[in-house]
Amino acid sequence: MISPDRFRKIRHMLLHRQPDLTVVMDNVNKAHNLSAIIRSCDAVGIGALHAVSYRKSIYTEQDAAAGASKWTALHLYHDIETVYKKLSEQKMQILVASNKAGSTDFRSIDYTVPTALVVGAEWDGISEAALHGANQTMVIPMSGMVESLNVSVATAIILFEAQRQRQGKGMYETLQMDPECFRKRLFECAYPRLSRELQQEGKGYPELDEEGTIIGEKSW
Amino acid sequence: MISPDRFRKIRHMLLHRQPDLTVVMDNVNKAHNLSAIIRSCDAVGIGALHAVSYRKSIYTEQDAAAGASKWTALHLYHDIETVYKKLSEQKMQILVASNKAGSTDFRSIDYTVPTALVVGAEWDGISEAALHGANQTMVIPMSGMVESLNVSVATAIILFEAQRQRQGKGMYETLQMDPECFRKRLFECAYPRLSRELQQEGKGYPELDEEGTIIGEKSW
Repeated sequence: MISPDRFRKIRHMLLHRQPDLTVVMDNVNKAHNLSAIIRSCDAVGIGALHAVSYRKSIYTEQDAAAGASKWTALHLYHDIETVYKKLSEQKMQILVASNKAGSTDFRSIDYTVPTALVVGAEWDGISEAALHGANQTMVIPMSGMVESLNVSVATAIILFEAQRQRQGKGMYETLQMDPECFRKRLFECAYPRLSRELQQEGKGYPELDEEGTIIGEKSW
Repeated sequence: MISPDRFRKIRHMLLHRQPDLTVVMDNVNKAHNLSAIIRSCDAVGIGALHAVSYRKSIYTEQDAAAGASKWTALHLYHDIETVYKKLSEQKMQILVASNKAGSTDFRSIDYTVPTALVVGAEWDGISEAALHGANQTMVIPMSGMVESLNVSVATAIILFEAQRQRQGKGMYETLQMDPECFRKRLFECAYPRLSRELQQEGKGYPELDEEGTIIGEKSW
């Protein structure tokens, strides 16, 4: 049985999830950056993000991060075109963080529409392929001598601007997930093992009450 | 001789420095976090920050970061009281990032007044001593399952909110440094070796023209 406190915490998390906001990590490979980015995503309500690797060593790091990430799904790819295709089908604007000339100030962009934020590798910056398929490049204004921010720092600065805008529009006050999807995820997060068993048996999930207790036999 | 391009870059950096904004790192010890925080400070115009260590191993990491930091001064201490005393003499408000109950939303704080932001260690969080001497604790709103953000991420989110507010007040458009201090720093950054020699000889610095060329013998 799940404790009512833990159930409320999971429910609160899912109620605030923003399914039309995501991040694509283009060749980001340092474990501490992957972990920091996943934590920031969770904090602003991103339930799933994407990681692209062009080298095996990067894939290994990303795969480890995906395994360690309990509440935020990390999908892995070997090319960015596949991710972009998926995002375009979801009608997401694709924004690339890049300090190349002509990029838009990140604060003048509207993040309340479906948005995917693409951030680049620590050393090589953003790949040509990632730039090619993007709708817009954007820059974080800086006035010092250093040319770039740490990748997890840059990602968080933009994500929390998105959070600020979405808060202003009340997007954390109403359920953004599909209600059916919300009920499903709530059961799976509260009862991970049982939900897997029911799935294998091809059965539906039973109803839960306000405190997370399973109610009788009724299922959906 | 310094190249005109490099001189302009240094001049631009100093013109945007915010001497009444700083960061105190309370026991932050991971090299990648120290480095990421210093880069963020430089980006928003912080020319000097402070690091406190209670253990020798932490001091060693902080000392290495100080040595690697060319444009942003990192001052080291063994207790936070000494830092707080200095900051209070500079009439700075001392804000501690902490997710303890009753903390103020970081976005509702005014960062256009003299401000020191205190951030805590990766594992132990913020120390009692750091909390004790602070004017206010503040929190970054989060809606996920993870309890805290990476320390360099949290620092940057707050610093870029400060940058946003200070931009809105035109504080990056007018010189914030004392003009005499600005001229001194400009010479030292453009001619580090020569400035040290002149200092040792007890001499003043010569004037520079718009491109960084030393003008004649006139000194101040």
